[in-house]
Amino acid sequence: MSRLLEPGAARSDGVTDDRAVLQSMLDVELAWVRVQRRLGLVTDDVVATVAAAAVADRHDVAAIAAQAEAGGNPVVPVVSSMREQVAFHAVSPEITASIHRGLTSQDVVDSALMLVASRALAPLGAMLRGAADATARLAFEHRGTVMIARTLAQPALPTTFGLKAAGWLAAFDDVLEELAMIRASLPVQCGGAAGTLAAVEALAPGRSTEAAALLAGELGLADLGRPWHTDRGPVTRLADALVRAADTMGKVAADIVTLSRAEIGELREPAAEGRGGSSTLPHKRNPVLCVLVRAVAIEAPHLGATLHSAAALAVDERPDGAWHAEWGALLRLLRRVVVAAAQTEEVLAGLVVDTQAMRRNVDAVGPALVSERARVLSDLGAGEGATDLLDPTAYLGAAECLVDRAIARHRASGEGRTP
Amino acid sequence: MSRLLEPGAARSDGVTDDRAVLQSMLDVELAWVRVQRRLGLVTDDVVATVAAAAVADRHDVAAIAAQAEAGGNPVVPVVSSMREQVAFHAVSPEITASIHRGLTSQDVVDSALMLVASRALAPLGAMLRGAADATARLAFEHRGTVMIARTLAQPALPTTFGLKAAGWLAAFDDVLEELAMIRASLPVQCGGAAGTLAAVEALAPGRSTEAAALLAGELGLADLGRPWHTDRGPVTRLADALVRAADTMGKVAADIVTLSRAEIGELREPAAEGRGGSSTLPHKRNPVLCVLVRAVAIEAPHLGATLHSAAALAVDERPDGAWHAEWGALLRLLRRVVVAAAQTEEVLAGLVVDTQAMRRNVDAVGPALVSERARVLSDLGAGEGATDLLDPTAYLGAAECLVDRAIARHRASGEGRTP
Amino acid sequence: MSRLLEPGAARSDGVTDDRAVLQSMLDVELAWVRVQRRLGLVTDDVVATVAAAAVADRHDVAAIAAQAEAGGNPVVPVVSSMREQVAFHAVSPEITASIHRGLTSQDVVDSALMLVASRALAPLGAMLRGAADATARLAFEHRGTVMIARTLAQPALPTTFGLKAAGWLAAFDDVLEELAMIRASLPVQCGGAAGTLAAVEALAPGRSTEAAALLAGELGLADLGRPWHTDRGPVTRLADALVRAADTMGKVAADIVTLSRAEIGELREPAAEGRGGSSTLPHKRNPVLCVLVRAVAIEAPHLGATLHSAAALAVDERPDGAWHAEWGALLRLLRRVVVAAAQTEEVLAGLVVDTQAMRRNVDAVGPALVSERARVLSDLGAGEGATDLLDPTAYLGAAECLVDRAIARHRASGEGRTP
Amino acid sequence: MSRLLEPGAARSDGVTDDRAVLQSMLDVELAWVRVQRRLGLVTDDVVATVAAAAVADRHDVAAIAAQAEAGGNPVVPVVSSMREQVAFHAVSPEITASIHRGLTSQDVVDSALMLVASRALAPLGAMLRGAADATARLAFEHRGTVMIARTLAQPALPTTFGLKAAGWLAAFDDVLEELAMIRASLPVQCGGAAGTLAAVEALAPGRSTEAAALLAGELGLADLGRPWHTDRGPVTRLADALVRAADTMGKVAADIVTLSRAEIGELREPAAEGRGGSSTLPHKRNPVLCVLVRAVAIEAPHLGATLHSAAALAVDERPDGAWHAEWGALLRLLRRVVVAAAQTEEVLAGLVVDTQAMRRNVDAVGPALVSERARVLSDLGAGEGATDLLDPTAYLGAAECLVDRAIARHRASGEGRTP
Repeated sequence: MSRLLEPGAARSDGVTDDRAVLQSMLDVELAWVRVQRRLGLVTDDVVATVAAAAVADRHDVAAIAAQAEAGGNPVVPVVSSMREQVAFHAVSPEITASIHRGLTSQDVVDSALMLVASRALAPLGAMLRGAADATARLAFEHRGTVMIARTLAQPALPTTFGLKAAGWLAAFDDVLEELAMIRASLPVQCGGAAGTLAAVEALAPGRSTEAAALLAGELGLADLGRPWHTDRGPVTRLADALVRAADTMGKVAADIVTLSRAEIGELREPAAEGRGGSSTLPHKRNPVLCVLVRAVAIEAPHLGATLHSAAALAVDERPDGAWHAEWGALLRLLRRVVVAAAQTEEVLAGLVVDTQAMRRNVDAVGPALVSERARVLSDLGAGEGATDLLDPTAYLGAAECLVDRAIARHRASGEGRTP
Repeated sequence: MSRLLEPGAARSDGVTDDRAVLQSMLDVELAWVRVQRRLGLVTDDVVATVAAAAVADRHDVAAIAAQAEAGGNPVVPVVSSMREQVAFHAVSPEITASIHRGLTSQDVVDSALMLVASRALAPLGAMLRGAADATARLAFEHRGTVMIARTLAQPALPTTFGLKAAGWLAAFDDVLEELAMIRASLPVQCGGAAGTLAAVEALAPGRSTEAAALLAGELGLADLGRPWHTDRGPVTRLADALVRAADTMGKVAADIVTLSRAEIGELREPAAEGRGGSSTLPHKRNPVLCVLVRAVAIEAPHLGATLHSAAALAVDERPDGAWHAEWGALLRLLRRVVVAAAQTEEVLAGLVVDTQAMRRNVDAVGPALVSERARVLSDLGAGEGATDLLDPTAYLGAAECLVDRAIARHRASGEGRTP
Repeated sequence: MSRLLEPGAARSDGVTDDRAVLQSMLDVELAWVRVQRRLGLVTDDVVATVAAAAVADRHDVAAIAAQAEAGGNPVVPVVSSMREQVAFHAVSPEITASIHRGLTSQDVVDSALMLVASRALAPLGAMLRGAADATARLAFEHRGTVMIARTLAQPALPTTFGLKAAGWLAAFDDVLEELAMIRASLPVQCGGAAGTLAAVEALAPGRSTEAAALLAGELGLADLGRPWHTDRGPVTRLADALVRAADTMGKVAADIVTLSRAEIGELREPAAEGRGGSSTLPHKRNPVLCVLVRAVAIEAPHLGATLHSAAALAVDERPDGAWHAEWGALLRLLRRVVVAAAQTEEVLAGLVVDTQAMRRNVDAVGPALVSERARVLSDLGAGEGATDLLDPTAYLGAAECLVDRAIARHRASGEGRTP
Repeated sequence: MSRLLEPGAARSDGVTDDRAVLQSMLDVELAWVRVQRRLGLVTDDVVATVAAAAVADRHDVAAIAAQAEAGGNPVVPVVSSMREQVAFHAVSPEITASIHRGLTSQDVVDSALMLVASRALAPLGAMLRGAADATARLAFEHRGTVMIARTLAQPALPTTFGLKAAGWLAAFDDVLEELAMIRASLPVQCGGAAGTLAAVEALAPGRSTEAAALLAGELGLADLGRPWHTDRGPVTRLADALVRAADTMGKVAADIVTLSRAEIGELREPAAEGRGGSSTLPHKRNPVLCVLVRAVAIEAPHLGATLHSAAALAVDERPDGAWHAEWGALLRLLRRVVVAAAQTEEVLAGLVVDTQAMRRNVDAVGPALVSERARVLSDLGAGEGATDLLDPTAYLGAAECLVDRAIARHRASGEGRTP
């Protein structure tokens, strides 16, 4: 990764970096030893010894990474490194043999990636929830703030900023629901070398599917009741939800960037020391967080498509390249969406709304903005007082009702729904 | 469309062609008049007259299409054409005025596309259900048919063809569940020119959101309780599910193409008069349906990504290009997935399984195919009779159990789940 | 295709529709008979008879399309239909046998698609050239028209509209050069059933590669000196250039849509009867052509990516799905880019420039727009008259020089470079 | 980046990591001071002092990265860090002021990325050239090695492995030519804050475009004669060529993986200590390098599409997100293609060809493999000795001629064409 050209990368620290990935892989291997304990295959001592070795800081990530090519993935060197660590504590062939026994590389990588995702979805959900909360406040506060509704970039009708915010809010709440559901269903992978659980059966006859379920429990992941080594639905469902989160944030950011244009001047990103400055132009106040969020929104659909391409090209009992194409795209998608969520939350929490500019722009358009109204009423053979007919604040339709609905739904969702 | 270079296009006849799209637009306009009737704004006569005009065959699709550019979409000429039709029957300004009154182009296009999708999902679901049923039969019949499990294109372990089919089946059943859920939630669009329902409020004060709900009911679509003109989640959720269906079919097709290779010879597409022939090579029997399904699977992720790009670029109260980018991609995605589903169902219903070839290939690999077993057992300090140790049919792990689970789930899903 | 939801589709009539594709396939088959004549394998009579049959109107496109699935492509039914046509004129086994003899389906489909592309690139080049000519006029006329340069959506410095147009122009001229080069290099495909030219060698020993070159000559395509059945560089190079054309038009359209916003008001699409109107809002004047161009620009990268995915997945001597995935994407890309070019040319030819609005917006920003200048000069220890320092028209850098360069290059390219 | 899940990442060390990116940015800033020297604006001492500071190791990359968000890109903190470094050596306002004077962030980032690309294209070209050389040797050595040509995954005709290799070779040579051309045309970016070169004009009246050309010369980049801040053709042309390189390698890898299948057994990746091993199956020899190359080929089209999306969404004088979306995709594309090229070269240099297996597979198909021949000859009314008619080695068409052409072209290109 070039953090240098990934502004805001620090906001995702610990989420998808090598240490996080390695720790998740170690967690899977340790959990599997715990499963063996529950099956009576190893003693508590074995678990304790492996647990001591299953700490990322005790391993040389760079060395493991360097050895990952030979097997096509890092599991072989991870297991070797664990066994070396264990050997420091206790020279026991039993312990060494128990590590990874019955699993395959894909069990470890897939389960570890689901763990990485599960752990990333917690802060992601919290930040999106924060963004939604801030948006709900904007919707509430500005339910009566009249502004221009624009379609195809041209003034169309009056609306309220509260309704615009309510539109953002409903989309955030949909995304939060979906991510919560996705998080709860991220599955463990446990199928052995070819998805038959043959080695696990050999270890614990008649209990292999139970072992898979136990592994899920140990890791806090779901148990699909089957391996999914070549059915990549769990990966694309996660990816699609993440891309949808990016889409949603991209829409909000596009609105804010547009309404921040000097000639419109209705919104402004919150100021922060040094932020939005230019390397040459002292007067500039760029909506830089929104710009960065838009960058993620432009990129994310392609990352999602990469994962679908990989899913579509699966073959045999483990694909010949398609599986390997998933990792980078999924990790980058997770990281970028987390960064964008942090930026979006910050923007919405401090968004500066210039209600006077909104009104000024409404007035600048003049009566044309409510021209639809006269036509509708004349069609009906109806009419009202002329003054009222031309008053944009009197042609807001169901705006208030729609704002109330969005806020009510958001409040109702408040109890523990955060993924 | 070039049907010439879209082999099998006839399998999607009526699903996404111009007539189907036009009929859906007419259905939306008619349903809206019916809503006006229920609100007491028009009489039964108006409904009857508009209903007579809301038949695609009465309109000149080509002429409407030719006029679609001026407004950026075909709604203006559709409405004009309806009004002309109505004028044949009854010269009534009331009827003319009632058509499209209070709606906006996006209400009609979005709702019509959701209708098109809803109608396409019925045969799509039936065909995928047919494919799943055939796969369940294969899984059941071949639960004991030993074959090579291949990973990274190399022989790994023994498995059964039943388990391979069970893997396909589970993925099909996931897709069926998702499509059924998606179909039930396809929403009506009803927000008026800027999402405020202002004109509807002017028509029926205090009843505009009720009107939107009534429109949903008339069309058999869902009511989100809000317009979603710039929150394109409903579109991307539909698209993602369709791409996932394509991914799933692509995986099955890749397996069949691979196992049909002359040197492997384990599977064969069903024969049909003239099918799979070459323009020059009389001996060829190409797995042509699977090849065509793979083509869809390669293309579909890009169509899905187009829709996410469009969603991510939404801005204002109607986007300046992103909305327009959705239509072609969504219609093509629907059409291509329908065609692929028809082809996949046909392949699976008649799939030729050469169990002798499967066994021959297993035997050709020899003892290496179960080498894992001896290692696992020696790690355990256990052992079995040597003959048994080298018997691939005795190292199938939980294969039978996993097959049973997949079939049981499929059967349980059989009551009315087809979307 | 849904022309209904592809506004402006008529602008591409005849370019990529089934009739055009079929005619190109017939042209390839006829050219091949002509090659056989030049090799002494058939007589002039054969050529004449086949020529009479090689007219799209004499064939039942729908019937051919319906039969395309069996072989995975339409070549078998095209050849059958040609033979039936020939049988009307002369019952001659010699003529029947000569059609398609030695070729394979891929030779015909690939060559026909290159022909379709070649024919599409002629009007496409002319329209883009028209767009570039109009842009050159704008650059020339407005070389002194001061306006705001905007970066990250905020006012940055003064520039001229002439320089903005010069930027568009340079990009258009790059695209024109690339398309001209691409057009001249579109290759014929001629390799026989597996790329060895074996059947052609059997027909004309020692002359098979000459035959391929003759076929290129007959069709006005290039001869790569080899078949390229599984090296899809020629397809992706074409696609990349088309996507680049779309990117370029998308940038221009985005600028125009942005500068057409009511609050900015610097540019306006040319008016046309009924264009830009809304189905409900009489006052609206939407920049509808630019909006449609933007839709193409959003979609095109995904179409290009589809073709790269297909190229990347080629295998064997003809791919098992990747080849088939190319057709729809390439035809749609061609069609959409042609439509966008027609729309772009029309917009630029009639673009309304409000120089007063440009100046008004400059003045509204005030001295901040040239704040960089004072800083640069004070860094240098230099200075100028205060009035001048704050005059935006006196801080335009090399704008005029850059405009002159762009215009000079465009004029120099004027002699016959249009693809 | 997760190197852990990017097997083989070490093969790209130094190409696109943060240090390389930072060094390129420093190189641009230093080159610009040198340009100021040539324009007489600073002394040699200034250049020397800045040169001492323009060394990546003297800067805290992590700190710079952490500050990159505020301005949306890392240029502000890079310039600050340079000025701090300079202050250690000489407290001179002149020197401090000269750094970055007249440039804008985009000048530095764009030029630095072109430098990064230029530097990556050197080893990339060398590795692809190595791959092509190895392929030429394979083509030469196996010009007479008969094997099955397969189409749609089924045996079609006889061909030679030499011809298959010649097909790979021609594609490599096309890619090499394109990359060499691209490398020679990677342009410097120099336009100042809004593309007018206004600040440079203020610094050196009448010489701003000359300054841009001098900057290009200092950096070994091309001078387009204009800024290209919102015309992203140079970026997409580079990206398209890189994706095409990936496509080409993907095709070769797919062929090798397919022909390595146990049942086919015609090719084998070179063995290396520990490579291709499984975490559980001792007998496995996976074609792991080819699998990893395929993963890059699956991902690359999406990275290229990201850059086209960014190009298509450019607006104003610097885009509001589209520019920022380029960086990660371009760097990842460069890195992944370099890794794949190293892997591809290694595979081809040591590819194991089992000519006996090729012949055995030909014989297993039997006479059907040359059935086309009898038909062609009987059409002609010709015939040959029956034995010969059924001999696959006697039905190879122009295979030898095509091999010779490919090798001759490759040799002719050998003089200094490597990018």
